Amino acid sequence: MRLFERYLASVKDVPEDRLDSFCSEIRSFLIKHVAQTGGHLASNLGVVELTVALHRVFDTSRDRLVFDVGHQCYVHKLLTGRKEGFDKLRSLGGMSGFPKPSESIHDAFAAGHASTSVSAALGMARARTLQKEDYHCIALLGDGALTGGLAYEGLNDAGQSGEPLIVVLNDNGMSIKKNVGGVARHLTKLRLQPRYFQAKKFTHKLLDPLPGGRAVGRFIHRGKELLKNAVVPGSMFAQMGFEYLGPTDGHNIRAVTHLLRQAAAMRKPVLIHLVTQKGRGYTFSEQNPSKYHGVKSFRVDDGVSNGLECDEFSRFFGKTLTAMAGSDRKIVAITAAMQSGCGLEPFAERFPRRFFDVGIAEGHAVTMAAAMAKQGLRPVVSVYSTFLQRAYDQIVHDVAMQNLPVIFSVGHAGLSGEDGETHHGVFDPLYLSSVPGLTLLAPATFDELRAMLIRAFQMSGPVAIRYPKQAINLPENRDLSPVVCCRAGRDATIVTYGGTTQAALDAAELLDGRISVGVVRVTSLKPLPEIVCGGEVFILEDNPGYLCRFVRGVPVNTGDRFVTHGSNGDLLAHCRLDAASVAALIAETFETDRRYG
Amino acid sequence: MRLFERYLASVKDVPEDRLDSFCSEIRSFLIKHVAQTGGHLASNLGVVELTVALHRVFDTSRDRLVFDVGHQCYVHKLLTGRKEGFDKLRSLGGMSGFPKPSESIHDAFAAGHASTSVSAALGMARARTLQKEDYHCIALLGDGALTGGLAYEGLNDAGQSGEPLIVVLNDNGMSIKKNVGGVARHLTKLRLQPRYFQAKKFTHKLLDPLPGGRAVGRFIHRGKELLKNAVVPGSMFAQMGFEYLGPTDGHNIRAVTHLLRQAAAMRKPVLIHLVTQKGRGYTFSEQNPSKYHGVKSFRVDDGVSNGLECDEFSRFFGKTLTAMAGSDRKIVAITAAMQSGCGLEPFAERFPRRFFDVGIAEGHAVTMAAAMAKQGLRPVVSVYSTFLQRAYDQIVHDVAMQNLPVIFSVGHAGLSGEDGETHHGVFDPLYLSSVPGLTLLAPATFDELRAMLIRAFQMSGPVAIRYPKQAINLPENRDLSPVVCCRAGRDATIVTYGGTTQAALDAAELLDGRISVGVVRVTSLKPLPEIVCGGEVFILEDNPGYLCRFVRGVPVNTGDRFVTHGSNGDLLAHCRLDAASVAALIAETFETDRRYG
Repeated sequence: MRLFERYLASVKDVPEDRLDSFCSEIRSFLIKHVAQTGGHLASNLGVVELTVALHRVFDTSRDRLVFDVGHQCYVHKLLTGRKEGFDKLRSLGGMSGFPKPSESIHDAFAAGHASTSVSAALGMARARTLQKEDYHCIALLGDGALTGGLAYEGLNDAGQSGEPLIVVLNDNGMSIKKNVGGVARHLTKLRLQPRYFQAKKFTHKLLDPLPGGRAVGRFIHRGKELLKNAVVPGSMFAQMGFEYLGPTDGHNIRAVTHLLRQAAAMRKPVLIHLVTQKGRGYTFSEQNPSKYHGVKSFRVDDGVSNGLECDEFSRFFGKTLTAMAGSDRKIVAITAAMQSGCGLEPFAERFPRRFFDVGIAEGHAVTMAAAMAKQGLRPVVSVYSTFLQRAYDQIVHDVAMQNLPVIFSVGHAGLSGEDGETHHGVFDPLYLSSVPGLTLLAPATFDELRAMLIRAFQMSGPVAIRYPKQAINLPENRDLSPVVCCRAGRDATIVTYGGTTQAALDAAELLDGRISVGVVRVTSLKPLPEIVCGGEVFILEDNPGYLCRFVRGVPVNTGDRFVTHGSNGDLLAHCRLDAASVAALIAETFETDRRYG
Repeated sequence: MRLFERYLASVKDVPEDRLDSFCSEIRSFLIKHVAQTGGHLASNLGVVELTVALHRVFDTSRDRLVFDVGHQCYVHKLLTGRKEGFDKLRSLGGMSGFPKPSESIHDAFAAGHASTSVSAALGMARARTLQKEDYHCIALLGDGALTGGLAYEGLNDAGQSGEPLIVVLNDNGMSIKKNVGGVARHLTKLRLQPRYFQAKKFTHKLLDPLPGGRAVGRFIHRGKELLKNAVVPGSMFAQMGFEYLGPTDGHNIRAVTHLLRQAAAMRKPVLIHLVTQKGRGYTFSEQNPSKYHGVKSFRVDDGVSNGLECDEFSRFFGKTLTAMAGSDRKIVAITAAMQSGCGLEPFAERFPRRFFDVGIAEGHAVTMAAAMAKQGLRPVVSVYSTFLQRAYDQIVHDVAMQNLPVIFSVGHAGLSGEDGETHHGVFDPLYLSSVPGLTLLAPATFDELRAMLIRAFQMSGPVAIRYPKQAINLPENRDLSPVVCCRAGRDATIVTYGGTTQAALDAAELLDGRISVGVVRVTSLKPLPEIVCGGEVFILEDNPGYLCRFVRGVPVNTGDRFVTHGSNGDLLAHCRLDAASVAALIAETFETDRRYG
């Protein structure tokens, strides 16, 4: 590890002939650490050379490097003084797994959701030019992010802007699982231009060592552009106004460095198309990159993981929907690059013609579902709560306005752990409840989820079923009462739903013998049933507070803020929503009442 | 008008040599009627031949014709038995200016917002195929809608789907004002392929009359595709997997009919590129299509309109921001195809380098603004309330999460009249208030708007200023109290904000002498001030209800539903939110109280 230690803070100084070893050591470091903490592995292994090249050409304390999605920023963090952070990666109080300007000046812009980087880099480029400053703006996005409309909106504006900026397209032919759509096919075509690819490599080899080689290279490049347009379909990026460079092997540091320098000198919108391999350098992630996309801890030797690919509640949803689809041919499942996360592997396998993964395109998923429902199908749109907010307008305008029976399966509702503030599913109670005519249900058990799905299919309008990562063990609620008393109590009542149900029950248990606390669970957030409670009422929610707008009582929620990353257990405690904190709050209220009441 | 009357219900029967006269008569009808009722003129004049051709080829009672944006559906409505509807176009109880499945079986899908048509047509096509049915699915979108990312998401999925569907691109080189972005430039390039254009025309002329001409034409078309890729840059649509036909003159009914037939026979995703002229056939709208995009009533003879291009509150906003930008070089204005609607003409003229119209791409507008703010500018994003909901995730994820000082100027907040349910700005109090750290202000007067803008520029986080179409006359509130008593009252208080303030004051006036009613106006919706009221409290809102979630009282609002179209005055009465209804409600409450109290 001597090379690694020596050059980590000065990557520009690594001798050319040691670069490969340096990258190998970075890979070993990543594998070792992510095996312990969990995190995003495959995507980071794919961008080692690319990130090293970026840091050899640019100064990220001034130049603005914008990561798209953001979970591929580990190498960048390593090269910008955050090696120690990997010990507590994604834990409460530890380093975030995503770029965070509050963490380092080298993190230009926060990310977590996809397809934002071109818009952000363009905004920065325009701000730079207007303020007569001088720095480079670089967007780093994957081919997956390219399936999102926002990326296209950014490219469309950037291409004609004339603003100097660099878009690095890290094309590994997959988003989370595999890539989708016509543009992906276009990229494949571009990748498969062997003669062009070879010619380019050859030219670089030939010209790099010559004095003035770069200028000559540019001239030759121009000629090749003309040639390329004549013999192969022009790239859609060129048509949008970008200077298109590539495709080039993204693991060839010299080639990538050369292209980045060339792009930086061009002073116009440039897109560099790099081909990389997701999971590169670790046998198990090379063989199965989606498995190692986001992982819990695993054993380095044999790659055996301690976590599931998909949380249990989503898994149950997928299994249940698959079973239902067996007896109802009108059921179709739609997801936005979340096939495995949403538990839809069995559905995709059994009903491939009725399964639609549209890529990272939540808006399209929802509008298409609305149209399918209009023509008599029963579509189920399945994405996490945090991603569904990207389709808010389509839910309002295309689904609800026509009262179409689209079912939304909203996983990861509530705090969702290590991914942190960009990924918590905390806004859906507010944004979904604002949609006229939409029914919003909140199951806490497997049985309830199944019963709600059955009921949703009987309804004639839109229904959203929001559920946390983990189900809990509770008595049956087969008749689907919209409000269920889980525990009787004389002195106080905790009203709750979803991911805080267990904490509520445990808090009541903790106070047993001192204060008699009941727990009431709401399973229908809209329409909201009448909630009658005994004693002092506490409204417990792992979001900024929805129920507390309607039910009188002491609001106990995350408040009007974004919640950081960490395990859900740690986060509940951090937000004082865990059993101990809730019990303490109730006890304190009673103490105060007794003292002053 | 005999031709018109005779063939309106059977457009397939119009003899070929009478088609031009038939279209002229349709144009005269549209001009005459829209001059009286107001509505969208220029876009409808541009699609007369295209719509006639669509109806000659397809049967819209079975085939699904999906309009994008939708305001170009007048000719379609005329040809599907709704001629009488034009007498009360866009009035309460009258015909909608947008496609509405509830109005006619010929309206396949509702629209109002842009860029949804490809996703919808694809959903329908997939539903058709899965259910083994047989009908055509056609999306009709303009080049303006093509600037929206949702259109791209739909095209990307449709192109590779293999699903037979037809996308008709009605390219008039403008969205509402003029087109924006690299794709627009690409379209221009495609339009300017004169040899190809001519060759195509010629082939059609030559082959159409021959028996079997269509098959031969297809064969030749194939050959030309190869040729085209060799001599001109390939179309980005072809790269996405579409069969690309065109560009063709969209006013040549025979050519368009031919292409539509060809496309229908192909049984795969086809994109037909038509070039049309917005406002065609009426001198004044040809010369100034943006002015006649959406108009109030006007005089046919000289085109003089009775309405403004832009409502007075937006106009005042634009003037004020322009003045402020004169003394602060950090201020930039961003809009999404709403330059004139948002009153930004003076800004664009005076500060062209600091003005950014990104096309119909609200998400991009917001993310770019976030990045500009990150780099030290003071961006103001200006779009109507109904369109800002398309950027909900970007407001949460890119602006608020980094607490960036982006100002949102949210016009047309509240009921927004004749455009109807797709356009009312009724969700912003709920979706914007859910965003952590965002300040939400609601001015009702010009002075207040100016003072709030000044204050917003002093703040370090995001601020949204939402205002209705019309300002009202009220005493000054220079110190910007978050809650203002407009009128004292002993018995009851109406709490309100925005577009219902005048109704509240008038209701109190109506009850004067019988019941003493005060009016309290809230100017800060978030953070929400403490609101102390005397007597019975009524919470009046022209939306599904936001304040009523926090303030105890009788909720008086639109309820959980979508509100139809009509003048705002008519709509307030329809929703029982006008002065008379509110006064009646208050009186009734007091009667009841007196009787049973």
